[in-house]
Amino acid sequence: MSMLDFGIQSKSNLIAQLLQVVGTEGVITGESDKRAYEIDWLNKWSGHSSLVVRPANTQQTAEVMRICHANRTPVVVQGGNTGMSGGATPDDSGAQVVLSMTRMNTIREVDSFNNTITVESGVLLAHIQEEAERNNRFFPLSLGSEGSCTIGGNLATNAGGVAVLRYGNTRELTLGIEVVLPDGRIWNGLRALRKDNTGYDLRDLFIGSEGTLGVITAAVLKLHPLPTARSTAWVGAKDIQSLVRLIDACRSRCGERLCAFEMMTHESVALVLQHVTDVSYPLTSDHPVHALIELADMNQEGLANMLESTLEEALDNGDISDAVISASLRQRQNFWKIREGISQAQVRAGKTIKHDIALPISAISDFVSAATAAIGKEQSNARIINFGHIGDGNLHFNVLMPAETDYATMTRNTASLNRVVHDLVHQANGSISAEHGVGQLRRDELRHYKSAVELDLMMCIKQSLDPHQIMNPGKLI
Amino acid sequence: MSMLDFGIQSKSNLIAQLLQVVGTEGVITGESDKRAYEIDWLNKWSGHSSLVVRPANTQQTAEVMRICHANRTPVVVQGGNTGMSGGATPDDSGAQVVLSMTRMNTIREVDSFNNTITVESGVLLAHIQEEAERNNRFFPLSLGSEGSCTIGGNLATNAGGVAVLRYGNTRELTLGIEVVLPDGRIWNGLRALRKDNTGYDLRDLFIGSEGTLGVITAAVLKLHPLPTARSTAWVGAKDIQSLVRLIDACRSRCGERLCAFEMMTHESVALVLQHVTDVSYPLTSDHPVHALIELADMNQEGLANMLESTLEEALDNGDISDAVISASLRQRQNFWKIREGISQAQVRAGKTIKHDIALPISAISDFVSAATAAIGKEQSNARIINFGHIGDGNLHFNVLMPAETDYATMTRNTASLNRVVHDLVHQANGSISAEHGVGQLRRDELRHYKSAVELDLMMCIKQSLDPHQIMNPGKLI
Repeated sequence: MSMLDFGIQSKSNLIAQLLQVVGTEGVITGESDKRAYEIDWLNKWSGHSSLVVRPANTQQTAEVMRICHANRTPVVVQGGNTGMSGGATPDDSGAQVVLSMTRMNTIREVDSFNNTITVESGVLLAHIQEEAERNNRFFPLSLGSEGSCTIGGNLATNAGGVAVLRYGNTRELTLGIEVVLPDGRIWNGLRALRKDNTGYDLRDLFIGSEGTLGVITAAVLKLHPLPTARSTAWVGAKDIQSLVRLIDACRSRCGERLCAFEMMTHESVALVLQHVTDVSYPLTSDHPVHALIELADMNQEGLANMLESTLEEALDNGDISDAVISASLRQRQNFWKIREGISQAQVRAGKTIKHDIALPISAISDFVSAATAAIGKEQSNARIINFGHIGDGNLHFNVLMPAETDYATMTRNTASLNRVVHDLVHQANGSISAEHGVGQLRRDELRHYKSAVELDLMMCIKQSLDPHQIMNPGKLI
Repeated sequence: MSMLDFGIQSKSNLIAQLLQVVGTEGVITGESDKRAYEIDWLNKWSGHSSLVVRPANTQQTAEVMRICHANRTPVVVQGGNTGMSGGATPDDSGAQVVLSMTRMNTIREVDSFNNTITVESGVLLAHIQEEAERNNRFFPLSLGSEGSCTIGGNLATNAGGVAVLRYGNTRELTLGIEVVLPDGRIWNGLRALRKDNTGYDLRDLFIGSEGTLGVITAAVLKLHPLPTARSTAWVGAKDIQSLVRLIDACRSRCGERLCAFEMMTHESVALVLQHVTDVSYPLTSDHPVHALIELADMNQEGLANMLESTLEEALDNGDISDAVISASLRQRQNFWKIREGISQAQVRAGKTIKHDIALPISAISDFVSAATAAIGKEQSNARIINFGHIGDGNLHFNVLMPAETDYATMTRNTASLNRVVHDLVHQANGSISAEHGVGQLRRDELRHYKSAVELDLMMCIKQSLDPHQIMNPGKLI
């Protein structure tokens, strides 16, 4: 029986079995009610599910998976549905079950002495940040959608964000996880240990696997000391390589205090000033590139001075052309509003072909020159909106097409510009998927660039953990 | 054909094939020459190999593995042979090939702007530390055997050490690896990226797998800013829970500056003073427990003051009874000499039953009470030597037996005391193998405590990556 032959009889059987496990509040079958789970927030990816299941706890999740496994029913795990790459959207077949984790939203424990928090996968990222802060601790993961994304989605995609430079990705913030396997068995890997070498690192295999190996139902996360002081600067410079030298100077002088180093080209900043209200340009003259730099520490003493002397040296040696250190919370917020306004500005300005890439920091400048030239040849009326977390090598090297570009042209251009950009990324030993996940969006690209050996290793693991291929088929691998 | 039937004919064939790949300088067959590779440095583990192969590069390693795979010859990968758990020692069959990586000792690249160093797996840990420092960078991995262990061994065991509190284990210090698979294919995962989410996390599967899944031939490691200032204190306290509160105070006040928090009981310190020369007791009166605390930063300004005010507060609220901050390099070295002298003192004092455990920090105090009582009941003439990296939850909770204890008694006591200690660790959701590896030493214990689900997942992965079970049989899993 192919997935498409999935009949009415067996569907109603499946629903009956699932209802017994999760009750009426845990099953959504109405076409209009399901819709919110079938379309992503960007309105870019959509599909049709046979039904949506919303388990209330790990045991129910295990039972649901056991039933789906017995029926060979494909399952798409979904968190806050805020993904960028279509990884949590069902396909068009109507045969896939959406397993929504949003009812599993309990913070199970905060252990202050151990600096850990144990959460279920449906807890919103912002709630974890708040709970940490209530306990005088810091959970560093921070990204645009933090008010609506779930930690389960962050774990599934090994989410990045603005604090990776100092604290690492979601993977590095996680000590243990609980997973329901494709056949419904529960693996309890909820360890709260900094050191544990008892066998293979299963935790990190599930983290970042985008729902293709199992269902992450809970996690133990690391908490950090809460920084109570920040100092933030905005600088203008002549080129990217100057900023690369400035990152180096900041690290050498300020060490781990450096918690953000964000780059924006002139074009990115100009786009925000044009399309986003309530922001003001921080400097008095124009510069080809800009950076937002933030230090954080346990006390204010000497922090602004440290940043100031670092920037003064950079002004003296010509690495930057101008700089301002925020004198108020309002001024700091303005800096961040410009940086975070770029996404919104792009939506308002036209249609964007996005690239979520990472490079060795030393290779960024050459890459940007080469990619800018190559895109100019390919697409003369496009504007390059290049910005990102340059401190950890992650660029959102986007191409803004004129608003009037039609769908067919966009599709054609996306394929050809992806190839131009990703070829150069590949040559520089970079990554074509830094922090937004592979999902459906970059699945073919991944196959194009990965070595045969690596693809084979991944397929081996997929086959051994999910032999019936019921976990998120069509995504990632 | 069983491994034990491995005949003279096929052995000489194998040697002939390997000689063609690595030349005479790469094959050791003489009984006395092989011996150094067949016995570990502790003289605790020994075995017999059919031969020792020493490839000079990745390509040779791949060819060696292709030949061993074709012959179904079991392979034991070995680095500096400084392991604690017999993970790199061949068994007694004489059928296993020792694959020594020590000729692959090239530092391939230092990328200062990217803060990475690319090294082959046979490079000594100390050489990596030195090369980092020559480039004004810091490679934080630090452990007793750093002058003779190789980074390949550190990667294979996900080594810990004294800097985990601030910088993490070997896994967290690694960005990419190169691996020769059991069948001789090369997986080039040498990425130098802070963000890369293109598929399953194969890197972390090989790290910590103790040579049972493949041969790590090279790695890209993260470099950190070089701390140029340190402040170090020695404190005495009434109990472990007081030290747990002090860790919390240090983190809250000093943030990421806290780079070491080592605990030693009175018995551990007394043992060093008795058996190690050239150390002097730092305080003026006795205390039940001691801690060595170190802060590191980019400049000296305010660092000692920060430590001093933290300790003053702890003196005021009774969490510590006495403290001294080192006023000279010599004084600091004395503190560390006491801490690092415990291993040597144990060897001189008698026979030790070792436990390399990790616990949630909040659970340490209760565990120590319960384990001390349980051991007292079991073995009244034993002394507990309890010390370790308490800042990351890792204790070396050792039991020192009288020097006259015979071999049979040691064996019997080891089994029964392991059970007592590990049962309590297991109840506290801790780890029975924190940083020394599983190897042969803790393989049965691992099977005893791991859930059936986790063992099954591990076996699944082992089976899919090494179906002929030629990689380090008898170790870890």
